[in-house]
Amino acid sequence: MTFDRENLLQQVRAQMTEHRFIHTLGVASTAEALAKQYGADPEEADLAGILHDYCKFWEREKMEEIIQREESISAVLLLYDKELWHAPVGAYIVERDLGITNQNVLDAIRYHTSGRKNMTLLEKILWVADYIEPGRQFPGVDEIRELAHQNLNEALLKALGNTLMFLIKQKKRIYPLTVEAYNGMLADLQETR
Amino acid sequence: MTFDRENLLQQVRAQMTEHRFIHTLGVASTAEALAKQYGADPEEADLAGILHDYCKFWEREKMEEIIQREESISAVLLLYDKELWHAPVGAYIVERDLGITNQNVLDAIRYHTSGRKNMTLLEKILWVADYIEPGRQFPGVDEIRELAHQNLNEALLKALGNTLMFLIKQKKRIYPLTVEAYNGMLADLQETR
Repeated sequence: MTFDRENLLQQVRAQMTEHRFIHTLGVASTAEALAKQYGADPEEADLAGILHDYCKFWEREKMEEIIQREESISAVLLLYDKELWHAPVGAYIVERDLGITNQNVLDAIRYHTSGRKNMTLLEKILWVADYIEPGRQFPGVDEIRELAHQNLNEALLKALGNTLMFLIKQKKRIYPLTVEAYNGMLADLQETR
Repeated sequence: MTFDRENLLQQVRAQMTEHRFIHTLGVASTAEALAKQYGADPEEADLAGILHDYCKFWEREKMEEIIQREESISAVLLLYDKELWHAPVGAYIVERDLGITNQNVLDAIRYHTSGRKNMTLLEKILWVADYIEPGRQFPGVDEIRELAHQNLNEALLKALGNTLMFLIKQKKRIYPLTVEAYNGMLADLQETR
């Protein structure tokens, strides 16, 4: 897989704030490092990191319209937190507008906020990289940063659990895929312990 | 609806520890009081309270066998925390062995641990009564006790959220019906606020 990194970065930068662009670079480099550690493709990880928030700042109405129109995106999303929308919309748009065809990369982008049952290694890496990249500062992030270098699955389980608890404290609805991701990781880990 | 309360209490008492029987009496009287406050049938609430933990101390294997055999009970339960099993098993058994036929009461028993989407008033009352009866002592219970007398739905939402957070902290799987109950209550409350 080859891609014009500089050109993509320029296009990504045009979609977001400078703060979010710096976050994007952090996710890309963290994802690449985790890929090297855990045996995923570092280029795929880098590319997924670069593109994961492509639609993060798109207008609500624009995302809503895409979700309603595109049959490949579950319209049930519209009943849940808007923060979930940019992930599947992003996967759709980077394929359509930037010509990205690598399905591993597209799925990692698609599930980087919700998670899902039976996540692939690249999906796990992007999810965790997004949570721990160097710019992230919130209570508990250091614990998950450390875990991520010891056991990616344990880090993901802990981060999914924290995310669910955050949603409950904020009185936000819980997207079922996130519960499936959490239950699935728990089952996998209990089998291997 | 009439029932031989003393006779049922004797049968219930024979299924459980003294501690759990005292809890049962607390749930029945709390449920009856909530029913009077919120316009449900106090007799149904009392009866549901008396019977809700009928199978709580039944052996794991006995409950497992019933869940596997009875098509009316979802076998998916076997993949989740054993604490969930006694509710649907109890609903089945009190109908079969004690001749309880009131569907409101049976559903309240059936969903008193998991909750479900679109809970009935009696289901909400039993769920909350089980959480706040006078013998319950744990961090946060007083807040929910107070809420229960002001707004049953708010109390249930808070209690469901606490239950989900407890499961996550304990690294236990989350039963999807409980998330549906939580999301459903949140949606209802947001519409009426």
